[in-house]
Amino acid sequence: MANLTKIVECVPNFSEGRDREKIEKIVNPFRTRNGVKLLNYSNDEDHNRLVVTVVGEPEPLKEALLEAIGVAVEVIDMTKHSGQHPRMGAVDVVPFIPIRNMEMEETIELSREVGQIIGEKYGIPVFLYEKSATAPHRENLAKVRKGEFEGMAEKVHEAEWKPDFGPADRHATAGCVAVGARMPLVAYNVNLNTSDVAIADAIAKKVRHLGGGLRFCKAMGVELTDRKVAQVSMNLTDYTKTAVYRAHEMVRMEAKRYGVEIIGSEVIGLLPMAALIDCAEYYLGIENFSHDQILELRMME
Amino acid sequence: MANLTKIVECVPNFSEGRDREKIEKIVNPFRTRNGVKLLNYSNDEDHNRLVVTVVGEPEPLKEALLEAIGVAVEVIDMTKHSGQHPRMGAVDVVPFIPIRNMEMEETIELSREVGQIIGEKYGIPVFLYEKSATAPHRENLAKVRKGEFEGMAEKVHEAEWKPDFGPADRHATAGCVAVGARMPLVAYNVNLNTSDVAIADAIAKKVRHLGGGLRFCKAMGVELTDRKVAQVSMNLTDYTKTAVYRAHEMVRMEAKRYGVEIIGSEVIGLLPMAALIDCAEYYLGIENFSHDQILELRMME
Repeated sequence: MANLTKIVECVPNFSEGRDREKIEKIVNPFRTRNGVKLLNYSNDEDHNRLVVTVVGEPEPLKEALLEAIGVAVEVIDMTKHSGQHPRMGAVDVVPFIPIRNMEMEETIELSREVGQIIGEKYGIPVFLYEKSATAPHRENLAKVRKGEFEGMAEKVHEAEWKPDFGPADRHATAGCVAVGARMPLVAYNVNLNTSDVAIADAIAKKVRHLGGGLRFCKAMGVELTDRKVAQVSMNLTDYTKTAVYRAHEMVRMEAKRYGVEIIGSEVIGLLPMAALIDCAEYYLGIENFSHDQILELRMME
Repeated sequence: MANLTKIVECVPNFSEGRDREKIEKIVNPFRTRNGVKLLNYSNDEDHNRLVVTVVGEPEPLKEALLEAIGVAVEVIDMTKHSGQHPRMGAVDVVPFIPIRNMEMEETIELSREVGQIIGEKYGIPVFLYEKSATAPHRENLAKVRKGEFEGMAEKVHEAEWKPDFGPADRHATAGCVAVGARMPLVAYNVNLNTSDVAIADAIAKKVRHLGGGLRFCKAMGVELTDRKVAQVSMNLTDYTKTAVYRAHEMVRMEAKRYGVEIIGSEVIGLLPMAALIDCAEYYLGIENFSHDQILELRMME
């Protein structure tokens, strides 16, 4: 009776943020396929860039993505592209994010599969990045993309930047693409009963990885000026290892030093259900809970 | 972008718990329909009864249910039925339970629609019960069913037991049916660091509605003998009004009197996701959270 529907998220970035008609053509393959749900797409004219957010089962999502990439390769000419955002290809970057019943290993495997097909079918050099990277110096997207479309013509011939898949030469009009797997980001902010942003910042520095705090936590102090509230603003880069409740309780713990208390919190944007169910399990001390007990998930089997 | 897929649960009880072939025939309509998910069915030979648990979108679930009822009317003859469980019809009782994006009012409306169709299409007298009842004395199923199949022949002619839908006379072989709406039941147990069941029972009596406690809470003390742990075992009959965290914290509060603490808890069976997300929101103090931020639910739009 286990709920085994796998769900993966994908946030492909395309180098077209101005031509409405082309944008719609690129997005269209994500609209109609069963098992694929287009959550959002937004284009920025200054960046001349399109960011698509889509979730779905791995196989149909892969098909929709490859179709969209085919369209992008056809309609985008990087030799004529300009925009404020760094970019190295018509399809600039394709991150896969495991949401449900997907291990990171499986997500990496999916990214490699897709990378290989992009390389072979569309003749685009592919760099695996983030968790999918084949060497440490390729993990960071900014480093992979350095030189951008124009510089990639040479860069792909450097020994340490040989593409993971696809031809040895940059695609004439579509450039290169980075494909990889990463964990979902949970943006979680905790509000304090002080307007002193210096206190929020001091707490942030204790809680975050950089300061000796939680491994998968980035944090900084922020002032909500209209509410006169200081906030510890966090990005949890792996909620399965640095749980939301742990970040919350660590903020509470550190706030004590300043005689400050938590007055509330907020989740920004989307997050996997498990990130919150985990918190309910922790605070209630629920033993042996299975997500199969959640009625809505049973509908998705 | 709101997630508007409505989900309703239905737990129809059929008076056939022995004949495997008939049972499969009754259950079959719930297996194949898009938007309907058969979660469980179990038959009891002593009770001679079949309990089906199914969730789905209202329209396809209604269709599947009416088909299953048609089969049950065909294959079950109540004049030949015997079993330990009280029963008044081939389809004994049909409760509808709102799970997601369904208000109680809408669920009641659905139960009335189904009741009317059962009455007209299958010629069975229908009593609306629980939240759907048309008079207070019809709310309680046991009272509606009193007299059982055999007694219903007369009972339906009493002024106060005139059926809500269908013919004035009991169906010769299918008897009568009760159709209604109720909230999902959340079975939530809290374990204490004592083996003294008298303490758990004293706490239960304070926490439950009957003892001046929470409006939608039934509770009793239970002993987990193998673990030497006493437990406050609760049924929350409306988690939207008596929240899981509130029941939990009230047990903690009352336990204090006995110098006893909570060591864990458990959720028995299924529950709607909102019952737990609500707890995460409470303990973390999350402001302005929307279920639309949960990735898995976006898949179900």
